[in-house]
Amino acid sequence: MNHLGIQHIVEFYRCSRSIISDGKQVEKVTLEAARLANATIIESIFHKFSPQGISGVILIAESHLTIHTWPEHCYAAVDFFSCGVLDHKAAIAHMQKEFEAVKRSIETFKRGDLKE
Amino acid sequence: MNHLGIQHIVEFYRCSRSIISDGKQVEKVTLEAARLANATIIESIFHKFSPQGISGVILIAESHLTIHTWPEHCYAAVDFFSCGVLDHKAAIAHMQKEFEAVKRSIETFKRGDLKE
Repeated sequence: MNHLGIQHIVEFYRCSRSIISDGKQVEKVTLEAARLANATIIESIFHKFSPQGISGVILIAESHLTIHTWPEHCYAAVDFFSCGVLDHKAAIAHMQKEFEAVKRSIETFKRGDLKE
Repeated sequence: MNHLGIQHIVEFYRCSRSIISDGKQVEKVTLEAARLANATIIESIFHKFSPQGISGVILIAESHLTIHTWPEHCYAAVDFFSCGVLDHKAAIAHMQKEFEAVKRSIETFKRGDLKE
């Protein structure tokens, strides 16, 4: 292994506006995504903005999972950074399904080059 | 503007091992970095792992600033995601200086394509 972690930057487009506006729902789905990935949740913060938008950061033993939603654009931004072997595919698939995202894009990066 | 946010993925290499092992110091420097960027801090979580390593997530009104340190590799991983006009350069320069990082790399991404 030449890197310390892996990061998935996920864009969910054309989500259900009502679901990603709902603070309780976004929190429940994102925490469940962390559990489905087999992450160890340490603590989380979720916040509802006025007039709209939800942000959440979950600190996990393996790094973090974050979400920010823009209901006015039916868009949600997710970052999943892990330094262990987690099932990120299960987490991302769960969020896509629950947010009813029609389109998704993922970029993946290696973090912490051990040769540096 | 065609995007909703901008994200900086920062790698700090060859940091001071003692500084990035110190939970209080990492928290202080990272919160100060958010302030220097003119971010609005909503809430933060910092956690010290055993035997080593610090993780912190700061939820800001403009999205998030996160840090994870690996003192054993003198490495710190920083993510700065913002949907407003923040002074990310000031934040990153502050962290580099305070962590005494000899090498830094930054990758920048646009998030939330409004054409999608």
